[in-house]
Amino acid sequence: MSESKKAVVLLSGGLDSATVAAIARDEGFTLFCLSFHYGQRQDIEVEKAQQLAAFFSAREHLVLNIDMGLIGGSALTDKNIAVPKTGADLGAEEIIPITYVPARNTIFLAYAASWAEVVGARDIFIGVNALDYSGYPDCRPEYLAAMQKSINLGTRQGVENSDYFRLQAPLLELKKSEIIEQGIALGVDYGMTISCYDPSPEGRPCGLCDSCRLRENAFHEVKIKDPAMKN
Amino acid sequence: MSESKKAVVLLSGGLDSATVAAIARDEGFTLFCLSFHYGQRQDIEVEKAQQLAAFFSAREHLVLNIDMGLIGGSALTDKNIAVPKTGADLGAEEIIPITYVPARNTIFLAYAASWAEVVGARDIFIGVNALDYSGYPDCRPEYLAAMQKSINLGTRQGVENSDYFRLQAPLLELKKSEIIEQGIALGVDYGMTISCYDPSPEGRPCGLCDSCRLRENAFHEVKIKDPAMKN
Repeated sequence: MSESKKAVVLLSGGLDSATVAAIARDEGFTLFCLSFHYGQRQDIEVEKAQQLAAFFSAREHLVLNIDMGLIGGSALTDKNIAVPKTGADLGAEEIIPITYVPARNTIFLAYAASWAEVVGARDIFIGVNALDYSGYPDCRPEYLAAMQKSINLGTRQGVENSDYFRLQAPLLELKKSEIIEQGIALGVDYGMTISCYDPSPEGRPCGLCDSCRLRENAFHEVKIKDPAMKN
Repeated sequence: MSESKKAVVLLSGGLDSATVAAIARDEGFTLFCLSFHYGQRQDIEVEKAQQLAAFFSAREHLVLNIDMGLIGGSALTDKNIAVPKTGADLGAEEIIPITYVPARNTIFLAYAASWAEVVGARDIFIGVNALDYSGYPDCRPEYLAAMQKSINLGTRQGVENSDYFRLQAPLLELKKSEIIEQGIALGVDYGMTISCYDPSPEGRPCGLCDSCRLRENAFHEVKIKDPAMKN
C-alpha cells in the first residue's frame, strides 16, 4: 500500500481553516492538524479545532502551548486592549486592525514548517484570505511567497530542493461567501466552527466584532442559516 | 532626552549570542533580550541567559515557554535521539547534524519580529555563524535575507516600509576564535556562558559534543583559558 501524501493544516477552529482542512482532505492528503493555545481571548476555538480534526479524520492533531500573550500588542492577546465592536473599520483597506497579532502567521508557519519537516509533509495549508478583509499584512500573497522561500532555505529538505515545501492558501482570493459555498459542497459542518474574537466563556459569539460581522454577512449572502448560531 | 535605539537580541546563554549582545550594546542599542524554554536538553542555558541579560543591563528580558519538544526531530529536543560525541561529523559541510532543530531559527526570528514590532525595535540581532559549522541550513546568509523579507512583509511596520526590520547577524562570517577575541575586547565574561548540547544537571559541559569541541578548539586557538571550565 502506498503512503498517501501528507499535509500540515493550520487549524484554528474558525470557518476558514475548517474549509481549508476540507479542501486538503478532498485533494487526497492525510491531515496533520496543528493548533495553538497562544494566549488568545477566543481560546475556546481550540476545542472547536479538536472536534474538527476528529471530523476530518486527521492522522494527528498537535496542540501547542505558546506564549504570545506575554508579547502582547493585540486586542486578541492583551486583555487591556478592547476588541472593536462598532464595525467602523470593517473593509477599510488602509487600516490594520488592532486585532492584528504581531507576526502571528510567521510564528504559526514556522511551527508548521518544523512539524512538516519531522512528519515528512511537503504541503502546509493555511486559511488566509486577502480579499474580504485585507488589513492583515501577513495575509498577503507576497508575504506567503517570501515565507515559503524562507521555509525552504531554513530547513533540511529545503537545502536539497528549494521548492520542497509548498504553502497552500486555497482561500487567498475567495470572498467569505465563496468560502462557505465551497465548504458546504465539501461537507463542512460550520456548526463546529467559531469565528468570534470575543466570545462568552460558554463560547457564544458576540455578534458585534468584525469577525462576527463578516461571517453573518457572508451567510446572509449565500442565503444559509449559520448552523453555529443558536436559536 | 532622546530615546535610544532599541534592538531585540536572541540570547541563548551560549558564547555566540553573548558576543552578539555585547556588539549590540557597543553599537548603542538598548537591549530587549529574548530567550526560550523550547524543550531543549540544555535548558540550563536559559539561566545563563538571565545572568547575561543582567550583565548587559538589558531593558527587558523576555523568556518564553514554547513547546518544540512535542514536535521532536532533533537530538536537542528528543531525549530518544542521542547527541553525537565522537566529533565524526564536525566540519563536514555536506552533513546536517542531528542536533539541527527543525526550523528553529525561523521560529525564534518570528517571535523576535513579533516582540520587536510591539516594543518598537527595528533591529533584531541573532548569533548565527556560517563559517565554523556550516551544517545548519538556517544559519546561511540567503536564509537570513529571505527571512528579513518575510518579516517585513508580514508585519505592520513592514507594510509602510519594506526595509523597516533589519536582521543583524554580526558573527555570520567570523570564525569561532574571532568571535571570542571580539567578545573579550568588548568585555564579555564567557564564564557566564554555556555551549554544551548535553550538560550534566548541574550544568557541567560534557566536553565531547560538537559544540564543546568547537568551543575548546577556539579557546585553544586564541590561547586563552575558557573561564567556563572549572579547574
